[in-house]
Parts: sequence; structure tokens; C-alpha cells
Amino acid sequence: MIEIMMNLKPDGRKALYEQIYEYIRNEIADGKISKGEKLPSTRLLAGNLAVSRSTVELAYEQLVSEGYVETKPCSGYYVCDIMDIYKAGNSEDYEPVVIEEKKEYRYDFSPYMVDLSYFPYNAWRKINKNVLLEEEELFKAGNPSGEENLRREVNRYLHQARGVNCEPGQIVIGAGNEYLLLLLAQILGAGKKVVMENPTYLQAYRTFCNMHYEVVGAEMDKDGISFQKIKENEPDIVYTMPSHQYPLGTVMPLKRRMELLGWAAEEENRYIIEDDHDSEFRYKGKPIPSLQGNDKTGSVIYLGTFSKSIAPALRISYMVLPKRLLKKYHENCGFYASTVSKIQQEVLAQFMREGYFERHLNRMRGIYKTKHDKMSAELKRQPWVHKIYGDNAGLHFLVEVETKATEQELIQAAKAHGIHLYGLSGNYIDTKPKTGYPTLLIGYGSLQEEQIADSVAALGSILA
Amino acid sequence: MIEIMMNLKPDGRKALYEQIYEYIRNEIADGKISKGEKLPSTRLLAGNLAVSRSTVELAYEQLVSEGYVETKPCSGYYVCDIMDIYKAGNSEDYEPVVIEEKKEYRYDFSPYMVDLSYFPYNAWRKINKNVLLEEEELFKAGNPSGEENLRREVNRYLHQARGVNCEPGQIVIGAGNEYLLLLLAQILGAGKKVVMENPTYLQAYRTFCNMHYEVVGAEMDKDGISFQKIKENEPDIVYTMPSHQYPLGTVMPLKRRMELLGWAAEEENRYIIEDDHDSEFRYKGKPIPSLQGNDKTGSVIYLGTFSKSIAPALRISYMVLPKRLLKKYHENCGFYASTVSKIQQEVLAQFMREGYFERHLNRMRGIYKTKHDKMSAELKRQPWVHKIYGDNAGLHFLVEVETKATEQELIQAAKAHGIHLYGLSGNYIDTKPKTGYPTLLIGYGSLQEEQIADSVAALGSILA
Repeated sequence: MIEIMMNLKPDGRKALYEQIYEYIRNEIADGKISKGEKLPSTRLLAGNLAVSRSTVELAYEQLVSEGYVETKPCSGYYVCDIMDIYKAGNSEDYEPVVIEEKKEYRYDFSPYMVDLSYFPYNAWRKINKNVLLEEEELFKAGNPSGEENLRREVNRYLHQARGVNCEPGQIVIGAGNEYLLLLLAQILGAGKKVVMENPTYLQAYRTFCNMHYEVVGAEMDKDGISFQKIKENEPDIVYTMPSHQYPLGTVMPLKRRMELLGWAAEEENRYIIEDDHDSEFRYKGKPIPSLQGNDKTGSVIYLGTFSKSIAPALRISYMVLPKRLLKKYHENCGFYASTVSKIQQEVLAQFMREGYFERHLNRMRGIYKTKHDKMSAELKRQPWVHKIYGDNAGLHFLVEVETKATEQELIQAAKAHGIHLYGLSGNYIDTKPKTGYPTLLIGYGSLQEEQIADSVAALGSILA
Repeated sequence: MIEIMMNLKPDGRKALYEQIYEYIRNEIADGKISKGEKLPSTRLLAGNLAVSRSTVELAYEQLVSEGYVETKPCSGYYVCDIMDIYKAGNSEDYEPVVIEEKKEYRYDFSPYMVDLSYFPYNAWRKINKNVLLEEEELFKAGNPSGEENLRREVNRYLHQARGVNCEPGQIVIGAGNEYLLLLLAQILGAGKKVVMENPTYLQAYRTFCNMHYEVVGAEMDKDGISFQKIKENEPDIVYTMPSHQYPLGTVMPLKRRMELLGWAAEEENRYIIEDDHDSEFRYKGKPIPSLQGNDKTGSVIYLGTFSKSIAPALRISYMVLPKRLLKKYHENCGFYASTVSKIQQEVLAQFMREGYFERHLNRMRGIYKTKHDKMSAELKRQPWVHKIYGDNAGLHFLVEVETKATEQELIQAAKAHGIHLYGLSGNYIDTKPKTGYPTLLIGYGSLQEEQIADSVAALGSILA
């Protein structure tokens, strides 16, 4: 039997039993007490340390729970054989991990960023406060597909603003479009083939790749995704942005839409994913209605997000499943809890119900239109601008520029001048087909109106 | 050329151009104007309807944008060929979708549910209010892996309370354990083989199945997952809950832990997923430290959640990646935006930083211990209780009951009496091995202390 000699510190910062437990654990871990050794009896150690026997018992039980020590009936406590891993090996031999800081730019032409300075923060705070008064009910596990209040509001909005034809029960709320695509891949199953527009929203492309789907890019003509390419490839899924294609800005006319819907209707297992990412912002006429609204065969899966209409950090998107996919969804994915907190869902539902969302959208449409017009006018008077397209909707232009530099060189040069620039090439699945001019995506969402002229001038000085 | 005869309603509820656009669109959709027909010139129609020419132009442009009409240079506007889909087919032939209402129970013995009546709602609201004062910065896109403030707090907590050895840069914040497992499958790649404890947390099992992983259940002995089964199956991944196995409550002793770590260290591509789901709650001695803390080879991926320590509806979990997986994570999954809203992350970070989380945990440990002791005493005096195990930790007991009924029959009978009962069998990957007695999971998290005696009596009357 070994002897335990230790000094207890009765200053109350650590319980006595914990001190005893830690001392013995460390002695075992350091190899100072070997396997098979018998520990002193609880009575003996309690006497030696002048503590109660139950204190020692608690320490021994902890050692037993964790497997350092085992009890032998009618005999006592013995040190276990725990292998020598404590002494062997070094910790992972890697540098400390640096969390990358976001670079701050003087001008950011991001096609994704939105203007957050007009958001009705007071209303949002007020609703937050109200919602949080609910306490317990709000913190209980919610509906896996999303809270009914929010699904009802999204349903109403989609019906009125986007012509989507659905019921709240078809709507799945999720933390971002990519998450919803991950769910969708689990509904549709493995090994599918997808045709998507090229260039496209690369995050969706990468999500499909991560799900081991075969993905084929289809070139775009003036009416959108090449229908020929779809027929040639016989995919299971077509992923498209008919109302305002990202990044090209193409609006798919009704004829191509009908061709697509007709193609999907031919076979039961053909689906169209309609990503309706920034259709809220159209500055000429009315918004283009959704493709889903024309779907009569339950072939369209509709995806939308609040990232542009409210804020990217909110992380709330929605997916409308055709009724014929609901059973499969509940079977394969019904066990996943919602990825959006119930609190945020209730806040957003109330924000919509009380009309704040609609007013905010209308206001932003006006604000973005002003920026759009100003940016358009600025660009048009630049000698280095060869052609502008993708205008009248969304939050960016496409600008072909006259320069000897490549897109990549321009982006690098701009970065050195504190300007965040985005090239069209970066949105192609493979490589961008050779064209005469480098093409930039000039987003104006996050630029303030009074920055527009200066930002274009700064860009011009780089191009010069 | 066709003639357009319509009545404009100048009551201001709908813009004039919109009325013209809708009228013509409907005429085309209904087949009343055929493809190829020429529309009246804008000048002519403007005259007929007594509106400005630009109003008609706007209506025509909308029709062109949406593809109902096309322009022919120097000729005018013509109706497109849009196929006959409007007239063909019926809408999806399905019943309206009913959103399932949650059934309310008199007593719910759920092993997942937590007691939300002691949550410091006032503190949470106060912090929410403070955080929301930040406005714009809070609504901008955040760090894909989680906000640095929160990762720092989680890191500190994991180090102090769970003995986890990591840096904030290794932590990924996500909306629930299942989402983090979906990410992990994209880091580790396709076609992996997983051995997991059987019975286990079935949501994890189903997530692996959805990712098309091969999953093998390994029986449990008194020290946890069968090491023999791991050696036989040569998996890539072992999924385990060493500190408090769900649902059996087994604590894996150090020796088995070392065997597991030794197994993983043998090959570079072997990983252990440690799900540390409710290790916060241990009522005898100290919490059992994490397996990750003993890992010297970067083989353990650690998963934890705030669902039990705060609330299920919060939807915040965390994953600690070994450093050697970080590169792959950033390559394969770095493009996914975080699934947790920045607002919630900042609120939680502040809740932790100001000590509320620790105080809440300590308080709940005391409250759950009281419930645990009371439930234990109640159960022990019931004649129908054959054996109780899995005690002293977590939020449920396992109770073998003496009855002629099957678990399923008991659950059904209880349901009819407003009691939500959970059987052990429901947690097996395949079928539960035959044992003598049906075994119930008796959770006490959401039962109030004064309900415990009555709930056990109510259960007894069903068993009688």
C-alpha cells in the first residue's frame, strides 16, 4: 500500500475532495503511483489528512468514475492500468490558429453587400423586446420546418410579391440557402445530375459538389440558360435564377420558362430549383413573377432569402417544396431541428406582420434606384467603360472595361488602393470563355450615394 | 393588329401602367390574343385610353421583360409564342398541407427537455437590448466559423469546465449538432465507415446515413463502446459519448479512453467524434473531463451544444476541429456562411463573458440534483420498478419495469392518459436485443419538483 502525503489548502477556493482527487490523479498520470498499487483506505487517509471520511470517499469515487482507480470487493481501491499515453507523444505540432480579420476597404463594390443604414432598427428592437417577454414558450424546441407564424408571413409575402403558389406547410425555414440545398440533396437522394447556368452563384455549385452531385454548366444566351444544353445532358435537376440571373442579370422570358417547365413535366423525377435571390429589387416596372407560379406539375423547388431584403447576418432563408416532395422531406429530414432560433423567427414574423418588412423593401427599392441611376450615369461618362449591362435590377452592374490588364490584375491593383473589386470570371464553374474585355461586377448596395462618384473616379485612376 | 379595349380604374389603387400590363397579360395567357399578333402602337393605345404614351410604354416594357411580347425593330410589338401551358394541366393534386400541432401532455418524461423556468430572462433581455444598439455592424455578414467573441468564450468554457485543449480558431459555431455533422462529413469526405455505440443518439445515426456513410452499431459493456467491435470493423470514424453515454448513462473509464485514443493514433485517417451532449450535469463529484483533453495526436473532433445548458430553441452548437483538419475545413466548407445569426452569437458571448452562463449552470445543477434525488427516491419505492441505472448525471434515469406489456404498449397506454413516455428500444440502430424487462427513459428535466411524485404515481397506475 502506498502512502499519500499532501498539503490541503483550506482556503475554500477548491473543495477538499477535489484537492485530494487532483493530487492522486496527477500522481497516477505522472507515473509516480504505478498500476496495481493499493490506495490507503478511506478511513486511514481521512485520519492522516484530518478530513472527514466522506470527503475521501468522494475523491475516490471521482477517481473510480474516471477510471483511474478501481475497487476490489472486500479489499479496497487499486490503481488501474491506463496505458502510458500521458507520457507518450507530443501535442499536435501546429502553429497557433489565427482567426482571419476582415480587411477594411475604402470602397467595396461587392454585388452581395446591402445598405444597412436605413434599416428600421428601432422597430426591430421594439419587436425583439416584445417577443422576449414570452420567456419559456420561446425557448422550447420549435417546429423543425420553421415556426408557423413565420411560415404564414413568408407564404403571404411570396404569394403577393412573387406570385408563388403555395401553402405555409410547404415552406421550410433554414439558416441560409446553402443549408437548404444540403437538406434538398437529402430529399432528392444521392448521385443526381444538375445543370446550372454558367456563370452562376458558385456557393450553390460548391454545395452540389460537396454532396457529390455531377454538375454541368450550361452557357447563357440572351433568354437565359441554354435549353439545348439541358436536353443534351438529361439532368435530374436544373438550377436556375430566372427572374434576375446572378451574375449576368438576365431575365428569362416566358417562352424559355415554359420550355423549362415543359421539360420538367415530361418525367416525374425532374426538378427545377428556382433561386429567386434578389428579385425584390427591380427599378423599371414591376418585379418579374416567379417561375414557381407557373408550375402546374409540382416540379419547381423555390428558394429565397432575407439576406438581401433585410441583412446577411440574419441567416434566414426559405424553401418552398412541391407537395409531392413533402413526404420524402419529412421521412428523410424531419428529424433535423430547425437551424434558425425560434426567437429570431418570431421577431421576423412580427416584423412582417406589422408591415415593417414591406415598408422597408419599398424604401430600399427607392434608395437603391437612386444609387443605381447615379452609378449608371457615372459609369456612362467614363472613357474606360466599353459596355454596361445587367442594369435595372439587383444591386450590381456588369461593366466591360477597356484595359490591357486582366481581371485578376485589376482586382489586385484595386486591393492595393483599398478598393474591393469583383470580376465576372470568378463566377464561372470552370474557366470563363475568352471575350474581348475584362468584365467587372460593380455593386452599389453598400456604397453611400455621395461615395459613388468618388469610387468610380478612384477605379478610373487604377485603370488609367 | 388587334384592338385593346379595357376600362382603366383611376382610383389610385393600382398604377395605370400596371392595369394595362395585367389586362394584356391575361388576354395573352387566356389565349384571347394569339401568338404573332401585333399590339397597337404605344401612341395609338395611349390615345385610345387617354393616358400618356410613357404609361403605355412602361406596360409594354414589362410585357417584354417577362417575355409575353417581343419588339421587332421598326415595326412594333408582337405577342410571343409562349406554349400552351397556362391552359394545360391541373395544379398539383394534393390535399392542403396541415402543419402538425404539438400534443400537450400532462406529464412529459422526455430525456431531452430542460427546465426553462429558472432561466435568467431579465439578463438575457438586457444583453439583447445592449447588443442590438450596435446596429449596422451586427447585421453585416459575419465570420463563417462563428464570431470571434463567442469562440473565445466557448474556448474558455471548454478549457475550464471540460478540460478541452484547443484555441478559438479551432472552434466552429453551428446551428445544431446535426448541422455540424453535415459539415464534418464534407470535411472527412464521402464513403466513410462509422462505428457508433448502440443504443445511441439516433439523430446522429440518421445524419450519417443521409450522408451515405456505412454505420455499424457496437454493443456497450460496462465501460462503454465495445473495443473489440471497433477492431473487427476497422472503421474510419468512431462516434462516442464517453462522459455520459446517451441513453445508457455509461461513463467511459480512462483505460477504455486510452485504448480508443491509441487505436485512433495508429493511422492518420482515423477519427473519434466525441459528442459531449449533457456532461454539464453530474450530481456526484466533478464532471468527467473530455476525451479530447487526452488526445495528443489530433484525432478527436469534439461536439457540444447549448441545447441543454441553455435552451433547445437557441440552436447553437460548437465543434472543435483538430488542427490538422482545419485546412480541409476551410477548403471544403469555408464558403458556407455561419448558420447562426450574428445577433444571437453576440448575445450569447456577452451572456457568457458576464458570468451569467456559469451561474445559470451552477444553479441548474442544483435544481436538477434536487429533482434527480426526488425522482430516484420515488422510483425506488415503486413495486413495478425492477432496476434503476444511469443515475447521478444527465437528465434521465433508465428504469427496468416489471410488466407483461411491451415498451410500445406502455408508451401507447401512457399517451392515452396524457403521459409522454420514452422507451429504450427507440434508441437502437436496429432492434434492441431481447432482455427480460421493458426499459423506460425517465427524464425529469421539464417536470417541476412538486410534479414528480404525482407523475410517478400516474405512471404506476398505467403499469398496474
